[in-house]
Amino acid sequence: MARMVGFSSLYRLYPQQPTWSSVVKRVLDAPSVRGRGRGVHSGARNTPARLPFSHIIEEDVAFFTRLLAGRAVTDPDVLAACNTDWLKSVQGKSELLLRPQTTEEVSQILRYCNERNLAVSPQGGNTGLVGGSVPVFDEIILSTALMNKVLTFNTVSGILTCQAGCVLESLSQYLEELDFIMPLDLGAKGSCHIGGNVATNAGGLRLLRYGSLRGTVLGLEVVLADGRVLNCLSDLRKDNTGYDLKQLFIGSEGTLGVITAVSILCPRKPKSVNVAFLGCLTFQNLLETFQCSRGMLGEILSAFEFLDAACMKLLERHLQLTNPITESPFYIVIETAGSNATHDEEKLHKFLEEVMTSSLVTDGTVATEETKIKALWSLRERITEALTHDGFTYKYDISLPVEKIYQLVNDMRDHLGNKAKNVVGYGHVGDGNLHLNITSPSKDPSLLAAIEPYVYEWTSSVQGSISAEHGLGLKKRNYIYYSKPSEAVALMGNIKAILDPRGILNPYKTLPDDLH
Amino acid sequence: MARMVGFSSLYRLYPQQPTWSSVVKRVLDAPSVRGRGRGVHSGARNTPARLPFSHIIEEDVAFFTRLLAGRAVTDPDVLAACNTDWLKSVQGKSELLLRPQTTEEVSQILRYCNERNLAVSPQGGNTGLVGGSVPVFDEIILSTALMNKVLTFNTVSGILTCQAGCVLESLSQYLEELDFIMPLDLGAKGSCHIGGNVATNAGGLRLLRYGSLRGTVLGLEVVLADGRVLNCLSDLRKDNTGYDLKQLFIGSEGTLGVITAVSILCPRKPKSVNVAFLGCLTFQNLLETFQCSRGMLGEILSAFEFLDAACMKLLERHLQLTNPITESPFYIVIETAGSNATHDEEKLHKFLEEVMTSSLVTDGTVATEETKIKALWSLRERITEALTHDGFTYKYDISLPVEKIYQLVNDMRDHLGNKAKNVVGYGHVGDGNLHLNITSPSKDPSLLAAIEPYVYEWTSSVQGSISAEHGLGLKKRNYIYYSKPSEAVALMGNIKAILDPRGILNPYKTLPDDLH
Repeated sequence: MARMVGFSSLYRLYPQQPTWSSVVKRVLDAPSVRGRGRGVHSGARNTPARLPFSHIIEEDVAFFTRLLAGRAVTDPDVLAACNTDWLKSVQGKSELLLRPQTTEEVSQILRYCNERNLAVSPQGGNTGLVGGSVPVFDEIILSTALMNKVLTFNTVSGILTCQAGCVLESLSQYLEELDFIMPLDLGAKGSCHIGGNVATNAGGLRLLRYGSLRGTVLGLEVVLADGRVLNCLSDLRKDNTGYDLKQLFIGSEGTLGVITAVSILCPRKPKSVNVAFLGCLTFQNLLETFQCSRGMLGEILSAFEFLDAACMKLLERHLQLTNPITESPFYIVIETAGSNATHDEEKLHKFLEEVMTSSLVTDGTVATEETKIKALWSLRERITEALTHDGFTYKYDISLPVEKIYQLVNDMRDHLGNKAKNVVGYGHVGDGNLHLNITSPSKDPSLLAAIEPYVYEWTSSVQGSISAEHGLGLKKRNYIYYSKPSEAVALMGNIKAILDPRGILNPYKTLPDDLH
Repeated sequence: MARMVGFSSLYRLYPQQPTWSSVVKRVLDAPSVRGRGRGVHSGARNTPARLPFSHIIEEDVAFFTRLLAGRAVTDPDVLAACNTDWLKSVQGKSELLLRPQTTEEVSQILRYCNERNLAVSPQGGNTGLVGGSVPVFDEIILSTALMNKVLTFNTVSGILTCQAGCVLESLSQYLEELDFIMPLDLGAKGSCHIGGNVATNAGGLRLLRYGSLRGTVLGLEVVLADGRVLNCLSDLRKDNTGYDLKQLFIGSEGTLGVITAVSILCPRKPKSVNVAFLGCLTFQNLLETFQCSRGMLGEILSAFEFLDAACMKLLERHLQLTNPITESPFYIVIETAGSNATHDEEKLHKFLEEVMTSSLVTDGTVATEETKIKALWSLRERITEALTHDGFTYKYDISLPVEKIYQLVNDMRDHLGNKAKNVVGYGHVGDGNLHLNITSPSKDPSLLAAIEPYVYEWTSSVQGSISAEHGLGLKKRNYIYYSKPSEAVALMGNIKAILDPRGILNPYKTLPDDLH
């Protein structure tokens, strides 16, 4: 890694209309819900009550054992891992794990569960951060782990079709040999499944360049709650024959259907990749550096990420990572990806000269070799891991107008005073996406009460989103009204009622309790 | 295309399940519908019967006149233009044109129409090509022409929020002064409205670079059939709080709600733009030129369009345009857009050297000045106009695996023999999108019978889409089953029933007749 020389409102015009429809009834004595910008949420109780689903009986286990010889698991040790989320913050009590290999098996499983009124918790790589991927009570765990085959790849169009359980990193490796890459990349790539990525509309590190899964996912195969298979796979870039139904399932967190296969548009592998790790004195300087990078790096800018000094301390303390530059209040990871190394390096050099000369950036280092690039990226990607070593972590994934990103971190620090162990901020500057994390030696209800609803009210007051990319899952479901008007939430309920009338798919997730 | 594993067929693995739900009833004696790849369509009759909506009476006109002083139009001369589509192929009989200025007025109009059971035909710039933007019978025309205000533009994030009736070219001009561009561009830009673009999920010339509206549209404000306002506007790039409802309205062609405002992510204006106009001897050479351009132009490639020799003849004959290069069987328009003119020109030069040396391209010219760029682009953009001078045009907008694009044109020529005046092909190679056009001195039912269902069966046999970007509108609605499985069409019916239970919004469009 060559150290560089001298590189020391919108608007809500109309009053609320009457309640949406009779399909959706509010059963909780919810406070008056006025939608976005008003900071009211219903269902302060965040622990749901078990809904009246059937309990698993011997005949059920016998059915699944016949269907999935050797892949209907009741071993408590295996189940323990699948009942617990990656953060170890949510613990289900499922006694049955099913591991289908084909869409037909998923179809038979769901048809049976729907008839028997058995609840199902679909699970991919179980890397979610909002308790969406594990059961809450005794839901059957439906794992996509054995649905891990690439089905087709078209080297002319770059369209990949694969089963939902393919691990993101395996797909990346498969494609790299063919000179393509996946359009998304995230820290959890070694475990997360593409089906889970799509079900949660994962964002990640390349969204700035390649856009969201709403544009890159071209088709889906989905098994509906009653076992019917909806085949919307496609190896076409464009299709305007009617409503784009696959969009319903992107980001629905397994509540509308189980994604069994995905068609996705993959970009060519860039011939040249550079990563710069830079330090800034103020967040304002960091924002100006971002603006400058968009002008000067333009079409080769593929990531613009940040972390604060508090993150760096955790990386050093818990993971023994080394800060490659002088200590700074803020750090930036910039990645460029292009088709001509000489041109890319020239653009990057000019950009770095500009931001150094104008003192927007105070120190930095650049990597072009793959191992060094990985080392720089790990400073950004391993923050989540470092946080797990710092104690119990309260995690918030907030979307804000980019100029307000860090103000929330500062305000939260002031607000909490010495109640928290650490308050850290990092995230995707290019997408206006802040990851705000607050640690504590152990679970601390009084700390939580100081954080929430403060963090949601703050976000709502600037028309932000309380979940930029993590989804709502179990943990955030009742806070949806901070970011979505009540008409929209009611419409979600209508759609759920069409696609999963008995509500067996991933209950207690995404939809707020007052929609039951 | 690398086909992996023993997964015999992606499509239609499972037998049809019983009818979707009781909400949707098939009233036509439809032939058995087996979905994609089987080439069966229901509803061969393409002229619908008027549905039992109310007829407009004097009190209705009085109500709208009070609401919209001077903007409720009954003048037959004004109505004539709005009753006829741009191609002059569809002719409605509406006697009332409403021109609201605000979302509140749209809300009051729809609430009234829904209560009175009056059908409504929403209309933007009326540039659609499938008869989707004009009434079929006496539907009230709801025009967005006076809803043409920019609401906000954030120069940091590049997010524009504007009313639905803004003309695409006006928005482009507005943004260019601020150093941004719209993420879409199409031949109809001088007339089409952004609301109509979104309602039809318009593709156009920049999709290859900036992706589809499903990724760039960040938020919508929509008035529902009963007058309620669904505010999903956003100036955030990411929001994963529940289902992405705005996607339902993108490409729904006004059948689910009237889009009144749009938030859209706009790219920076490129500092350097080059256009090359090239000639190829064969379509195979053209495809190899495309592959080569993706490798060598990479991130600066912003369009790769083609036209055949038959198109060029029409441009010369009817519009007196001049072919800037030697006569060739195929022509390519390549556009590059980047942040560094020197780098871009170097990339383009190397690429041209490569494709000329290898004889993939036989002649070509390059433009960097704006007027010359426009002149080259007009050879691609004015084909539709040239066709209107050639006689009655049967238009098909087909999405195909890119390697099969021109085979359909050749097969159609062989199939029609001397029945047609001209059979021409052009379109968006980068998106696998063919515009197949067949002209005739006048409307010719026997020619039509020779074209259809042949063109749809051909498309369906290679898992193509019978509408890549134009939508289904009135003309193609009953052919939906060639590209969408029947479960998906039935689900469209369920969604329509939730959002517009009386079916007043753009009836006879998009949804096939057998869903009524």
